[in-house]
Amino acid sequence: MSRPLILVTNDDGVNSKGITALVEIAQNFGDVFVVAPNSPQSGKSHAISLEKPIGVKLLLKSDYLTKFSCTGTPVDCVKLALNKLMIKKPDIILSGINHGSNSSINVIYSGTMSAAIEAGIEGVPAIGFSLLDYKWNANFEESKDYIKKITLTALKNGIPNGVVLNVNIPSVEKVKIKGVKVCRQAKAFWDEEFDKRKNPLGQEYYWLTGKFVNRDKGEDTDEWALNQNYISIVPVKFDLTAHHAIQNLNEWNFK
Amino acid sequence: MSRPLILVTNDDGVNSKGITALVEIAQNFGDVFVVAPNSPQSGKSHAISLEKPIGVKLLLKSDYLTKFSCTGTPVDCVKLALNKLMIKKPDIILSGINHGSNSSINVIYSGTMSAAIEAGIEGVPAIGFSLLDYKWNANFEESKDYIKKITLTALKNGIPNGVVLNVNIPSVEKVKIKGVKVCRQAKAFWDEEFDKRKNPLGQEYYWLTGKFVNRDKGEDTDEWALNQNYISIVPVKFDLTAHHAIQNLNEWNFK
Repeated sequence: MSRPLILVTNDDGVNSKGITALVEIAQNFGDVFVVAPNSPQSGKSHAISLEKPIGVKLLLKSDYLTKFSCTGTPVDCVKLALNKLMIKKPDIILSGINHGSNSSINVIYSGTMSAAIEAGIEGVPAIGFSLLDYKWNANFEESKDYIKKITLTALKNGIPNGVVLNVNIPSVEKVKIKGVKVCRQAKAFWDEEFDKRKNPLGQEYYWLTGKFVNRDKGEDTDEWALNQNYISIVPVKFDLTAHHAIQNLNEWNFK
Repeated sequence: MSRPLILVTNDDGVNSKGITALVEIAQNFGDVFVVAPNSPQSGKSHAISLEKPIGVKLLLKSDYLTKFSCTGTPVDCVKLALNKLMIKKPDIILSGINHGSNSSINVIYSGTMSAAIEAGIEGVPAIGFSLLDYKWNANFEESKDYIKKITLTALKNGIPNGVVLNVNIPSVEKVKIKGVKVCRQAKAFWDEEFDKRKNPLGQEYYWLTGKFVNRDKGEDTDEWALNQNYISIVPVKFDLTAHHAIQNLNEWNFK
């Protein structure tokens, strides 16, 4: 492969600092095609636009970089790119760099990871990258060399079929990063606290807030690796079948 | 267990025919607490409301039936119910009955199934029910006895930890249903076709349309079972780790 064709997307929006960094990395070694939401889409998970149309805007077109924004969700972006906007199928999709962690159960809520998963469903190798810093002006510089290395390694070795990679990066100086660990998803959840208020008409409404709770003490999880300043890579699949439970359920009597 | 406490939700909205049928079934044997979206939320997957508040409205309150509508997504409904609106933890969550299939890869896009999965993440047994009829006035009568039986069986046996059930029901007369089959998720995808249009200002927009493609010929899949007029039950998990790929990735050299 000489210069791979790389589709870049995210969920923080086409103007975020994270996607700008990812495009810069990808341009080092590939031709880049961006289709990303025109507004932040955090927490949109695998949502698609069924009941409204999707607006698309060409922002930039040159020989090596094309950039579209779209009014849809991250998954809409990937579907549009693969099925309509791109003439050639990309060699890989990179999603991110997300502002904030998508480790553990966050993979389920994340628009960044859902974009990568959609690519996987459609048969395109995909990696989602997230930096553990939610701030708008987070520092993506320290992670750039690792992201390049992981992407080139994935292109060289090939990501297994039916799998996409969920990469999370500690927000520390590069010299403090101990390396890369392949992990399983930690068993954790969000303990929600809803902030109850009343609007001027006296109607109740709630703001969703929560606390991340990880009771999984395993030393093979993404949470453990990140706490130790490793970059975590979790291979993620979209066949959700709990194969181990099939035998148990077959013993149930539905008569 | 005398009368179980049952949380009911869906993604088609609190006034849909499908949830009305599910509440009716659940009232047969349990006390029912409904928290459901006030408008259709199909294709919302596991989206949550991070950047806007969630309005809540009490529609009905009696000894055995409480009903709230909410402006959020199906997952918001479950989070609100479990963490704020319900005094007691429910014994089970039933989501649906969805108007249309959630078999195979549809589980990923489905708000109905994401509501069930959110319950599973929060440690509450959960089942999502879907009828293979997208119409607003679909006939849910023929499926009622099966839904009751499956729910009571799940309450009796206990759904394995970390697993929720994805139940799809063929839209045929009850006498034609051959029984219940425990299945794996068929490997399928949507082949998207975007309908391109221009608005009065000359700006381009797209409507998402697509064709469901199943090349999985296995006779242990939900698609196969449904085609044979069986009700399919797929045990679904939310640990997305592709455990089989960890060894392979550990051989990669990221240096």
